[in-house]
Amino acid sequence: MKYTFSECVNSFRSSAIRDLMSLATRNDIISFAGGMPGNELFPVEKLRILTDNLTRTQWEEALQYGATGGNPGLLAELKNWLKKRGFPVETNELIITTGSLQALNIIGKLFINPNDVVLTENPVFIGGVSAFLSYQAKIVGVDLDSDGIDIEQLKEAIKLNPKFLYITPNFHNPAGLVYSRERREQLLEVMHGTEIPIIEDDAYGELYFDEKSYQTSRPMKTWADAEMDSQILYTGSFSKILGPGLRLAWALVPKEIYDKMSICKQSIDACSPTISQVIAQQFMASGEIDKYILEVREIYRQRRDCMLAAIEKYLPKEVTFVKPQGGFYLWLKMPQGVDEEVLFKKVVERGAVFVLGSVFHPNAEKNGYIRVSYCNTPENQIEKGIKIIGEALHELL
Amino acid sequence: MKYTFSECVNSFRSSAIRDLMSLATRNDIISFAGGMPGNELFPVEKLRILTDNLTRTQWEEALQYGATGGNPGLLAELKNWLKKRGFPVETNELIITTGSLQALNIIGKLFINPNDVVLTENPVFIGGVSAFLSYQAKIVGVDLDSDGIDIEQLKEAIKLNPKFLYITPNFHNPAGLVYSRERREQLLEVMHGTEIPIIEDDAYGELYFDEKSYQTSRPMKTWADAEMDSQILYTGSFSKILGPGLRLAWALVPKEIYDKMSICKQSIDACSPTISQVIAQQFMASGEIDKYILEVREIYRQRRDCMLAAIEKYLPKEVTFVKPQGGFYLWLKMPQGVDEEVLFKKVVERGAVFVLGSVFHPNAEKNGYIRVSYCNTPENQIEKGIKIIGEALHELL
Repeated sequence: MKYTFSECVNSFRSSAIRDLMSLATRNDIISFAGGMPGNELFPVEKLRILTDNLTRTQWEEALQYGATGGNPGLLAELKNWLKKRGFPVETNELIITTGSLQALNIIGKLFINPNDVVLTENPVFIGGVSAFLSYQAKIVGVDLDSDGIDIEQLKEAIKLNPKFLYITPNFHNPAGLVYSRERREQLLEVMHGTEIPIIEDDAYGELYFDEKSYQTSRPMKTWADAEMDSQILYTGSFSKILGPGLRLAWALVPKEIYDKMSICKQSIDACSPTISQVIAQQFMASGEIDKYILEVREIYRQRRDCMLAAIEKYLPKEVTFVKPQGGFYLWLKMPQGVDEEVLFKKVVERGAVFVLGSVFHPNAEKNGYIRVSYCNTPENQIEKGIKIIGEALHELL
Repeated sequence: MKYTFSECVNSFRSSAIRDLMSLATRNDIISFAGGMPGNELFPVEKLRILTDNLTRTQWEEALQYGATGGNPGLLAELKNWLKKRGFPVETNELIITTGSLQALNIIGKLFINPNDVVLTENPVFIGGVSAFLSYQAKIVGVDLDSDGIDIEQLKEAIKLNPKFLYITPNFHNPAGLVYSRERREQLLEVMHGTEIPIIEDDAYGELYFDEKSYQTSRPMKTWADAEMDSQILYTGSFSKILGPGLRLAWALVPKEIYDKMSICKQSIDACSPTISQVIAQQFMASGEIDKYILEVREIYRQRRDCMLAAIEKYLPKEVTFVKPQGGFYLWLKMPQGVDEEVLFKKVVERGAVFVLGSVFHPNAEKNGYIRVSYCNTPENQIEKGIKIIGEALHELL
């Protein structure tokens, strides 16, 4: 049987995400590869109580089809929660998506014709790139420095007439950095008047580690003026503040975009899992979500500190990085003369694993970086794993 | 702000599905509009016990990312269940999808370039058409008669060089019919050697009402020879045998298709909700699924009988239909001289609702039919609602 596939099949990014997942979930080695919360951090006992207390009516809602844009109960809770955080919920529409990857995929579908240019950061969240590539976008990466996206490069790149700009200003995956307030303002200034939508992906926004990074990390969607607001498509997620297995996220977007997104979503999965929506709604309504965020924020901060201490202790000084102020990741620049692919093999042999930087390059190019996550590794393992990387590095230098 | 949408946005089917949902869920009228199980039929008490008994490890699995193709535990249970039913699980691959709509959407993406012809039935499941249209397919509908798809029309239609044929041979939505075994054999004969994939959508396959319809309804995927098997992409769903809110379905497809589908799914939602997968796995492992199917099959049969009796009693003899042997739907051909849109208004005014046949026409044309569902309406309401339709019809004749 010879199948006649469509043109877009050639644009599917190979199995990089799948490889990442299988690396990240191996039990026999210390993994710094995963971009997921540690299993031990999930609020299982709270969710047990919560599901025990669901009424028959709530169970029925959980098992039935729901509205395409999201169940009214969850939308109301989430709207309230976002409002407290300063989001313009009255002048935008909120849509529930099946993970924020689905929001990115739908936005890709809404805007991309084959060969259209899409601007991303370099490095970039691989899921977004996969989604955009699947609509045959031409991805142009704009470099990041320690304060955020490179403004001069961005000015050049918008001359390419891109369909949109996709960025993760907060606690970037993989770069671990947070855009400075100044850089955000410069970004909006450059984008002003271009009518190029800005996708502000904020999957890690709640995971700031101190008051200063909280202030710095205020999403542009919360403070942009009305004109710029209509240019910003904001996405948030329950994956890092409840559990990715629910496949539940949201986008806060102008009405015109909402209408198109919801028609598109109707033909993708009709609605996001209502069982997840009922659980998330109760988790918010009970106030447990805010307590849980406080808890995990502290644990991730401790894990970051633990990793930074181990790096200080075991890694050669030639390894450089931006100290993360939140989120899950450290993005390590390898010393000159170290081939990260050779390092990778040595480290895996010794019982640890990380992700090669090329995975996060918009065009999958080798870039001399590695990503180590501290989100999914208990502290006693972090030191051991970093020590392994350090020994392998010293061997190569 | 002026957004520059992609070409495909124009191909989005309007809000027909959304309208259908809002009709189907109104509380103030007797609804024959919904294509969902009745809330009162969900196995809530069983799921309560099941979630109570989940271990910490199972909860962790339920909250974490899973493999893109599906969680190993659910795949193993489902494979076993399908094997008992005669499916060629060893020579095909099984993929879990976020509702069977997602499977149809992914298959659409895999095969459709803009303006490609896709063959469907006429009438047809609107969700499938929406998915295919969203990739700018040209939909060509092939008529159904009481035994299934019209073979002569199909022979003509395959000359159009279609990318695939999409059919629902069992307890069709909306037509309520089951393809005869002879018609299935003729279909395979016509398709043999064409290398045109056949999407066999079997969302209602478990809901046969007697031994004869069980025999007739054996999916082609279970008995086609190896050569034809590679041409059949089979989809099944938990929506009608557990709950649509889980957003959980599957496709059993050749390896080459599986590989492409899973790469595509990686960029859509990374994995289907693992919380739903853990629940479905336990529902299968405990054997509760088979007991539940027996229960609901009997209830749907009773509701069908109740509706047939009410139709006999209240509807004019000029209304014709195929008696459903399973599934959810009756597809009523209106008598000459009755405008179904006029009827619709009269019926809604009197407190009942159904779906206009045009919703299920591949090109949304008026066709002189209405769909009445008995799945979601208790028996005491069925007679009352059909009486309303009968009175309105008599007024119009």
